[in-house]
Amino acid sequence: MAESFKDKVAIVGMGCSKFGENWDMGSDDMIVEATYNALEDAGIEMKDIDAGWVGTIGFHGTGSAMTSTGITGAAISMPLKLQYKPVTHVENGCATGTDALRNAAFAVAAKVYDIVLVVGIEKLKDTGFGGLGELGIPPHPVFEGGITAPGMYALAATRYFKKYGLSPEEGKKMLAKVSVKSHYNASRNPRAHLRNVITEDQVLNAPVIAWPLGLFDCCGVTDGAGAAILCRAEDAKQFRDDYVLIKGLGLSIGPGQGSVRTDYDFTIWDETVHAAKEAYAMAGIKDPRKEIDFVECHDCFSISEIIAVESLGLCERGKAINDLESGAWTQEGEIPVNLSGGLKAFGHPIGASGCREAFEIYKQLQGKAEDKSRQIKNARLGLVHNQAGLPGKFMCAVGLYGLPD
Amino acid sequence: MAESFKDKVAIVGMGCSKFGENWDMGSDDMIVEATYNALEDAGIEMKDIDAGWVGTIGFHGTGSAMTSTGITGAAISMPLKLQYKPVTHVENGCATGTDALRNAAFAVAAKVYDIVLVVGIEKLKDTGFGGLGELGIPPHPVFEGGITAPGMYALAATRYFKKYGLSPEEGKKMLAKVSVKSHYNASRNPRAHLRNVITEDQVLNAPVIAWPLGLFDCCGVTDGAGAAILCRAEDAKQFRDDYVLIKGLGLSIGPGQGSVRTDYDFTIWDETVHAAKEAYAMAGIKDPRKEIDFVECHDCFSISEIIAVESLGLCERGKAINDLESGAWTQEGEIPVNLSGGLKAFGHPIGASGCREAFEIYKQLQGKAEDKSRQIKNARLGLVHNQAGLPGKFMCAVGLYGLPD
Repeated sequence: MAESFKDKVAIVGMGCSKFGENWDMGSDDMIVEATYNALEDAGIEMKDIDAGWVGTIGFHGTGSAMTSTGITGAAISMPLKLQYKPVTHVENGCATGTDALRNAAFAVAAKVYDIVLVVGIEKLKDTGFGGLGELGIPPHPVFEGGITAPGMYALAATRYFKKYGLSPEEGKKMLAKVSVKSHYNASRNPRAHLRNVITEDQVLNAPVIAWPLGLFDCCGVTDGAGAAILCRAEDAKQFRDDYVLIKGLGLSIGPGQGSVRTDYDFTIWDETVHAAKEAYAMAGIKDPRKEIDFVECHDCFSISEIIAVESLGLCERGKAINDLESGAWTQEGEIPVNLSGGLKAFGHPIGASGCREAFEIYKQLQGKAEDKSRQIKNARLGLVHNQAGLPGKFMCAVGLYGLPD
Repeated sequence: MAESFKDKVAIVGMGCSKFGENWDMGSDDMIVEATYNALEDAGIEMKDIDAGWVGTIGFHGTGSAMTSTGITGAAISMPLKLQYKPVTHVENGCATGTDALRNAAFAVAAKVYDIVLVVGIEKLKDTGFGGLGELGIPPHPVFEGGITAPGMYALAATRYFKKYGLSPEEGKKMLAKVSVKSHYNASRNPRAHLRNVITEDQVLNAPVIAWPLGLFDCCGVTDGAGAAILCRAEDAKQFRDDYVLIKGLGLSIGPGQGSVRTDYDFTIWDETVHAAKEAYAMAGIKDPRKEIDFVECHDCFSISEIIAVESLGLCERGKAINDLESGAWTQEGEIPVNLSGGLKAFGHPIGASGCREAFEIYKQLQGKAEDKSRQIKNARLGLVHNQAGLPGKFMCAVGLYGLPD
């Protein structure tokens, strides 16, 4: 049945807050900024919203609506004063933003609501966030004995090097190309967090976080919010001519218990393979590399981007190095990857990322990329990819957003 | 558009774990028990499930899948080994269970999935849970200066007494009738937590928790899980003849910031009024008292049941006392309320409650109430009501489940 979902739901407005160390903003301020941005873009008012979905894992510090009653739809209904309207709170790790949008899209396709709002939000800086061990949720004492995200992704990197016969130097250099590209892309993107251009030498000589990952192989810690307004495709023209359609949505969670599955092949993300399969089936995609024009994928670490692109079927396995050397993933390349700067340099406020990546796809498809120099040409279909957790127990979401056929 | 949602989605299987102080079970055990219960009821296997939704606010103690990666769909995909399938985690306070079911139903109605699983789960006992102040989430230091749930609902009770001219003795006696009924109902319900029959005298002479609420006016602290299997209505007969249809779903969140809105009328829950309005509009309900046969509503305290029933439009405002005195809310009455024993005596594991209440409606509609003495006759439409948070900033969900017309 799922194929029938393609082209049923349109995105008619999107907004995004400034990403960065927003010490001067609470989560409520970013929710308001992103939402009014999206309302203005759609040409509607708050009263026109029938229902809302908020994606957040709830690191909001104090001063937000999310306190003694836990994290609920009130996270946005209070700051936005959504008088008594229905709001669902979705939480699915780093896949949260896309999953919130996914559930909102289903409600619209089911014809329950006409116009809905999706907000992804995370305020990380106030929490002292610095990695899984500091998320305020203690790791399981037996199964998750303190392994951190950089440590886990570092293992994937060394496995990748070994499997594809890369020397440590060759591997490190391949990773560096990802980070250099991300920072260059972010440097031209006005809302991005880390806008400093970096060189391969800087990446290679940076302090080691978890070998082979150095400081510039890891994403920063960022505050931000993104928002989207959805309606049914047949109503989209009431709002704008350059609306964007949801072509496919996929979600997959790995069955692993504990942090390291001994049978898991760290050089491919199985959950990404499955989520992409679901989204591609909905969208009718047969040859992803040819049919998809550009990609915002989960590059929490440089190695993550490489394995994500390969797992999405957008590059032959083990061949990312060729694409990185040829420039295929740059703005001028065959399939631009993380044009926005990615999680690495645009930023990764967890619950916000799926919406923020959709914002980049949406603006590029409309020919309205912020800073015109970043605009790609003739793009008709973009992909968003999010991934949470650890290998073997990832939560992975894939969204395909495109112009009408 | 929302009216078109009525009768689109069917419930073809439901399950429920034993509710109580399940010291011998982890959250995973209860998830497994409720889910296999539902699968068996629907006559399907785990592999037949296309996608899942889990409702929990995440008090699971140790030993569950929900640890360092936060609360995600993995909460059920790991214990159930839902190999790479999509699972969304929904969290909306005490409205969580119904909201999870609501989002699952939208996905089915949108024809994205054919057969989906919804699980509501909470493991409260291991956390030392004893009220909002001990939820592990500190209250906001200014706006939520430590007021507890019993304290807040006690204020609603005294306001109700004052507004409707009840003396303290008359008011306390009215409340006692609710609790006596709940315990009596639970005493005959095999899966309920508090199965001791109590008397009005016991309620009136119990230790005071927050006047006028005594020990027996407050629900207990309970572990439990509920599960549902949904499909589109046209496919329901493949599974069973006595399927149940989703007639309407409503959700509403109050706009209040802080714990006490000075303009809030504590004798009516505005959020319940709005959620019911949405659900009634979907279901085409004009006269709820006449058209709805029985009700599972949010009776976290005895006063909550009274104000909920009035807010749902099932009893004239201020007239609950007449219904309680006439026995209208008992099993033999005009509109049985909390036949299961309710949150009060069946139990209230937060994220589970919406699914557990739907379980009661489903079984009664099928003529399969557990313990045959509890079975009501000729019921065709039941209502589920959940409410979270505090007056003025409640999250409220309403579900209407019924037999085919």
